[in-house]
This record gives sequence, C-alpha cells and structure tokens, in this order.
Amino acid sequence: MKSRKITLSEKEIPNHWYNIVADMPNKPLPPLHPGTKEPIGPEALAPLFPMELIMQEVSAEKWIEIPEEVRDVYTMWRPTPMFRAHGLEKALDTPAKIYYKYEGVSPSGSHKPNTAVAQAYYNMKEGVKRITTETGAGQWGSALSFACNHFGIECEVYMVKISYHHKPYRKLMMNTWGANVYASPSDRTEAGRKILASDPDSPGSLGIAISEAVELAAQDPDTKYSLGSVLNHVLLHQTVLGQEALAQMEKAGDMPDVVVAPFGGGSNFAGIAFPFLRLNLEEGRSIRCVASEPASCPKLTRGVFRYDFGDTVGMTPLLPMYTLGHNFVPAPIHAGGLRYHGAGVVVSQLLKDNLIEAVSHDNLEVFDAGVQFARAEGIIPAPEATHAVATVIQEANRCKLEGKSETILLNLCGHGNFDMKAYEDYFAGNLVKHEVTSEEIEASLAELDTPIPG
Amino acid sequence: MKSRKITLSEKEIPNHWYNIVADMPNKPLPPLHPGTKEPIGPEALAPLFPMELIMQEVSAEKWIEIPEEVRDVYTMWRPTPMFRAHGLEKALDTPAKIYYKYEGVSPSGSHKPNTAVAQAYYNMKEGVKRITTETGAGQWGSALSFACNHFGIECEVYMVKISYHHKPYRKLMMNTWGANVYASPSDRTEAGRKILASDPDSPGSLGIAISEAVELAAQDPDTKYSLGSVLNHVLLHQTVLGQEALAQMEKAGDMPDVVVAPFGGGSNFAGIAFPFLRLNLEEGRSIRCVASEPASCPKLTRGVFRYDFGDTVGMTPLLPMYTLGHNFVPAPIHAGGLRYHGAGVVVSQLLKDNLIEAVSHDNLEVFDAGVQFARAEGIIPAPEATHAVATVIQEANRCKLEGKSETILLNLCGHGNFDMKAYEDYFAGNLVKHEVTSEEIEASLAELDTPIPG
Repeated sequence: MKSRKITLSEKEIPNHWYNIVADMPNKPLPPLHPGTKEPIGPEALAPLFPMELIMQEVSAEKWIEIPEEVRDVYTMWRPTPMFRAHGLEKALDTPAKIYYKYEGVSPSGSHKPNTAVAQAYYNMKEGVKRITTETGAGQWGSALSFACNHFGIECEVYMVKISYHHKPYRKLMMNTWGANVYASPSDRTEAGRKILASDPDSPGSLGIAISEAVELAAQDPDTKYSLGSVLNHVLLHQTVLGQEALAQMEKAGDMPDVVVAPFGGGSNFAGIAFPFLRLNLEEGRSIRCVASEPASCPKLTRGVFRYDFGDTVGMTPLLPMYTLGHNFVPAPIHAGGLRYHGAGVVVSQLLKDNLIEAVSHDNLEVFDAGVQFARAEGIIPAPEATHAVATVIQEANRCKLEGKSETILLNLCGHGNFDMKAYEDYFAGNLVKHEVTSEEIEASLAELDTPIPG
Repeated sequence: MKSRKITLSEKEIPNHWYNIVADMPNKPLPPLHPGTKEPIGPEALAPLFPMELIMQEVSAEKWIEIPEEVRDVYTMWRPTPMFRAHGLEKALDTPAKIYYKYEGVSPSGSHKPNTAVAQAYYNMKEGVKRITTETGAGQWGSALSFACNHFGIECEVYMVKISYHHKPYRKLMMNTWGANVYASPSDRTEAGRKILASDPDSPGSLGIAISEAVELAAQDPDTKYSLGSVLNHVLLHQTVLGQEALAQMEKAGDMPDVVVAPFGGGSNFAGIAFPFLRLNLEEGRSIRCVASEPASCPKLTRGVFRYDFGDTVGMTPLLPMYTLGHNFVPAPIHAGGLRYHGAGVVVSQLLKDNLIEAVSHDNLEVFDAGVQFARAEGIIPAPEATHAVATVIQEANRCKLEGKSETILLNLCGHGNFDMKAYEDYFAGNLVKHEVTSEEIEASLAELDTPIPG
C-alpha cells in the first residue's frame, strides 16, 4: 500500500503566524490617504478594524502568537491533510512528485476560515457587535459567517450580485450560520445606490461590494469591517496552512522545488508560499513560488504596479499594488473567485522584486484541469483551485519533457461542491474561452489618476 | 486548548471487515426465490453480482480481509477523523460526552464509498464492463460513480426522479466522475415503462429505480448490478468505519454507552454499530445501538417483519426484513435519503432479537437538530445525518435530566453541501411536518402476499 496521506496531530497546529515583512529585502511602501494622498498611520484604519488587527497590519515582528482561543477553533478542522497525488502523477505519466495540501476540509470548504476565525476573535475581544464584509464566489462570506456565529457576532455580507443569483446555496450556507446576505450593489448604501443609478443592471464586483461594506462600518461605532484577502494581517493568518505544509513535507522526507497556489488577492498564495519563501530568504534556498491567476483578471501578469484604491468608489486608503484599475469589472464568466482588481501589497512587492512568479490560465484550461484532477484524485476542486491545478499540470508536463523528478506542492484551497453550476456549463460546452483584451486593460488603467510609486 | 480531533494514521486503517453474522445468536433466514418462494443458494445471485461479493453475501466467516487495492483507495480519505463535540455539549448544557465519527471527508461526501470502492474493485477483478445502480438522494450514485471511475468501469445510475430534478448538482458530481445518470422511472427499461404507463407523473422511488437497474444487469453478461445498502456484503464493507471509531474511542480513553446512526437500508448504522455490538456479543457488554429513521418512512418502528421484495416490481429475491411493503412510496418531502421501504436482513434479525433499538423523528425535528449542529460544530450535516443528530440531542437531554455523564457516539455520515435546497425550504418555513399515517402503512402492507417467516 502506497502512503498517500500525511497527517499531523492537533499539537502540531502552529503556535505562531509567520510575518514575511520581517524578512523582506524591500519593505512595502506605506498606504496613502485617499484624499490627501499623504502616507497614513495605523490610526487611520481605526474606524474599520479592531486595534489588534491594525497592529498586525503594520507589524514587522517575524512571529505573531496565535491566541489559544483561535487555535482551539482551528482544531475543528486543522491540521488539514496533505496528500501525495499518486493518481494525478499516473494520469500525467510524469516523473514529478506532486503533493497537495487540502483546505477543503474546513467548515466552509476552503482556507478562508483560517483568517475569518482570527478576525472574528479579535473583534469579539474588542466588543464589536457586527461585522460587514463583501464576498464574490461566496467562499469568504461563508467563512466569516461561520466565524462570527462561533463568537456571537452579527455578520452582514454583501455578495456580488451575479454570484448571489448563481450560487443560492452559498447564500444558504451563510444563512445557516445566522448571517444576513444582500446582493451587491444594493440600495442599503450610498455606494450601492450610486452604482445602481448609473447601471441598474450592474452584475456587481468585489470592489463595489467592498465600498458598501466599508461605508456601513465607517458609519457605526459598533460595526467593523472585515476583508478576506489582500491585507497584510489576512495573509499573515493564512501562513498557518503553509507552516503545516512545511512540517508535512519534512515528515514525508521531501521538499518542494515548486509551490503553486491560486491567486485572487493573495491570501491563498501567501498562506502556502510564505513559509517556504522564508527558507529562500533565510537560507538562500531557491524554492519557486508560483501564483496562478485567471486570464480574465490578470493583475499580476498584465497589470501595473501602482497606487490604487482597494474598492471601486475610492473610500479605502491607496495601496501600492499590481492592479488592473479599481474600476475594472471582470467579465461575468463562471470561473468564480479570483476576480479582484488588485493584488495584496506584500505579494506585489515580492513580485516586483522577482522573489515570486506568476502565470495565468484561461477558463477552459482550468476546467480541463479541474475535471482531470477530480477523476484522478477524487476531489472536485473549487474553480479557484483549478487555476493552480492547471499550473501544476503544466509544471509536471515540463518535468516529463525535461526528464526531471521535481517535487511540486499545490495548495488545493477548497472543494467545488458549491460550484457545480460552473462544471455544468463546462460539460454542456457553454463556457466560452475568455481572456481580457489589452484594450480593456488599457482603458481601465487610463482612468487611474492615482500616484505612481517611487 | 481542549483536544477535539482524534485521528489515526494510514497504518491504522483496518485490515479486515467484521462480519457480524458469525456472532449472531439467531442467523438470518434464507432468501426465497421470487417465483417459487423456495430458499435459494448463492448461484441465484450470479447474474447480478460478481462471485466474490456473492461469497461475502453468504459468508459466516467472522473476519474478511480487505484487499490491498481497496485499502489503497481508502487512503484517499481514510482513516476519517473523530471529533469530540464540545460545541454541541455546551449548546445543550449536558453532562453527556458526545463524539462523532465524520465520514463527510470522503470524495463524494458520505460513508458510501467504503462499499462502492470494494464493489467496483471485485467487479473489475472479474472483468465486468458496466455497473448499473439506483440512487435516491444521490449519495450512493455519486459514491459508485467515483469508484467506477477509479477502476475504469462504466457506471449507469437510475436516480429517483424527484431527486434528479431537485438535486442537479448531485447529478453533475456523478457526471464529473464520468457516469451516465437517468431520471427513474425512465423509458429505458420495461420496469420503468410499466410504471410510467400507469403513472406518467410518478416521482419515482428507490424500489422502482432498483427494478430498472436490476433489469438491465440481468439482460447483459458484461453488466452487473450494485446496491448501496441493505445487503450483507454492503453492511460488511461499512464496518471499516466502526472499527476505526472503536480504535479512536480507545485512543480517547473512553467507550460509548450509546451508539447512534441514521437508518435507511442499514449500512450506515451497521458501519458504526456492528464493531461495538461485537463487544456486546463477545464480552457481554451492553452498549446501546440506536437506529434513527424518518417518521415518513418508519420501517423499523412501524413496519412488520416479513419476507418482501427488495424492489417494487418484484424481480429480486424475497428477503426476511422489517418492511412497509415494496409498493410503499414515501411522501415527496425533502428529507432526502433514508427512503427505502425495507431494512437489511441482518439488521432486521438483530432488531427482532432486541439486540438493537430504533427511534423515528419527523422532518422538522431533524432540521432543527441539523441547524443546531451546524451552529455548534461548524459542519452542516446531510439530511440523512440530521436524523441521528436528533436522536443524539434527545439522548443528551435525557442525560441532563437524569444527571448522567454518559458517552454518546454519533455516525455523522455526510455533509449537506448538496442538500441546501432542503435547508432553504426549512428556513423559508416551507417544510410541513410529515408522519406517515397508520392507514397508509396498513394499506401498503395489505397488498403484501409474500410469505410470513417462521
């Protein structure tokens, strides 16, 4: 019997999150005030986030302790398993060794609860009564609903309208955990009403939903806001998964040559990659860390490095990031997730410094990969995850061509149980291959009048 | 940090299935030929099943070795985790200790692959090209699709029509693993056409779908049939989960006073209960094993012990079972699963001998329990599993009343990710409480002209 699953015990859940900022050769540039365009300090974030999360956001400490109460909730699904992908290796007839870390065993079925639980915990500690947030494909909204339910906090989710209508079961999952879910743009906020006035049929976007959630939090002292990716503290929390993966690779007596993860705002990628990048930065290793993004929303491979807003309306601080422009609305194809216009600050700086790599795949390529994975490994990947699967297959095929037995590690960030509509479209031949055009990207970027870094 | 998860290593996956027939004080009565009503031998089953499974069906060996190739596939998700339900205990304020074995981590999200993989393996070994089967809620059909895909066998699933239309994503999951799925009754079989002729709007039933699948297998030497519960060999394969649970309870330094599982045809219940019943039979322990069934399909609590057909049309052998009559069609409510008219032979005999217990719950009670569990433990249970959750809550409340700190073990057989429509109906107040009436049961049983055992 070939060994397939590499498990850890509860005691091996990491005690600390890893903050890569401490090890970065070039530190991230400061955020700017959306009005004055001057650098802002942590206090500017106080209306939106509890103080402990703001301190994490600006921290340069290398290790940040995970509170006992958070680790206790993590035991509901952590440590997550790692698998050797014997089935996929065989299907690809590759000399590469493929491993995947599987985060789909969490309550909401993805890696998102790793930070949702931490965020809800710090909000609870500081007496916050309600948290607002946005969600696209629904992975983040359901994770935060779960976490808020656990700590007795009200949760209000603004769900991108097209996704709200395509994924009623994601919404129901949030309802099951007691959250209120609204289709965005909604008429509940000024931001939403403004969008609806100019485009009553707007399919919504993450940027718009963020504007709505931020507006509500800014108005009410009992309400805070929560983001599921992009920000430093969110990326930080996700390193719990990569640290486990590192321990599991060591347990398997192996070490990746390539680490691959889907890329939306950066938390998924950071989660698995940063603990391995630490080895590069500390010990001079050369583990390749590859971010996989959709060709329909390719900020890393085709965006610009520029200060930009986190939301569409322009309420958030300006962040130095790879971006397609905050007015960019990705085509309403069903790839699900990974549809944010910008990349997290830390990941952007790492890419700028050539410490990580990025690739993109179109929507047909990723579903080809997803179905191949499901048949070979028995897990139907979330559409987000299929992007990384496509990269893994590409790397494994390269290994075959080059006759190299490299080790590839994949972050299989979630299952596709709530995304079968997308698979249905794929099987029915209704998925039209989509890549954003250069004209569309140029048009979106042309609207930017935000500062150019350095 | 309280310990919550009790895990086993791959090496602790059991090497043998446990065959309770060896230990039963009263052995099951023989099956009868559907025409002659005379006892039949194993050879009568040869058109439908590969010989190895038939040998298991009639075996009195206490331990049957699990083939290496089957254990190898099991490593894709086994050993499954066991959890201490700290959250539910707290929510119920009970002195009882509650544990649950979680089978939702399997590829198709339930315990069903435990036998699907074994059945597909033995069929593959004997050169079978195609397997037909039925599915109700879809758990079984997706498990067999997964298993057939793994061993390169074609899979043809007859899915109860109402479920086919209510659960398109279950169907898509089967398609993802390459299976062909048809709404039953279909016009592809004589059995289906006969039903459609008398009732064109038939919502279908498991009994009807079995008739269709059996008819096709009986006609073609390259095609065999596979059943997801009821039969001895199916119950046998599921004991892999109960044996793990026993090892996990020992690892936790505890032992259940009560073991609770949902009850449809018996494999779910047998899987967790038989290895604990072994301790009762071998060592005179008195672990209570409780089967939870829906009030809309209550064969154990309100059916009769009688010879009956396994299917609606009357093609299968007659089996001695607790039954509501093979023409019983449960009301088309969305409880999902557990809707078979009869109980497996071995479980029926155990109930008749008072070695196990049975209770029933109505559909509102089980969704109340399911939502309470989701909020306390973070896992949204499959509707099937909610029945056992309702029983566990009942037992935990009894412990509170009696001031007893008993240990309760639950088989949380699957997640509800594909069943959110049922939760939607529950939240929307559209679930009408349903229990079958005595008149309905009497009418169904009055049609039976099958032999009365003993």
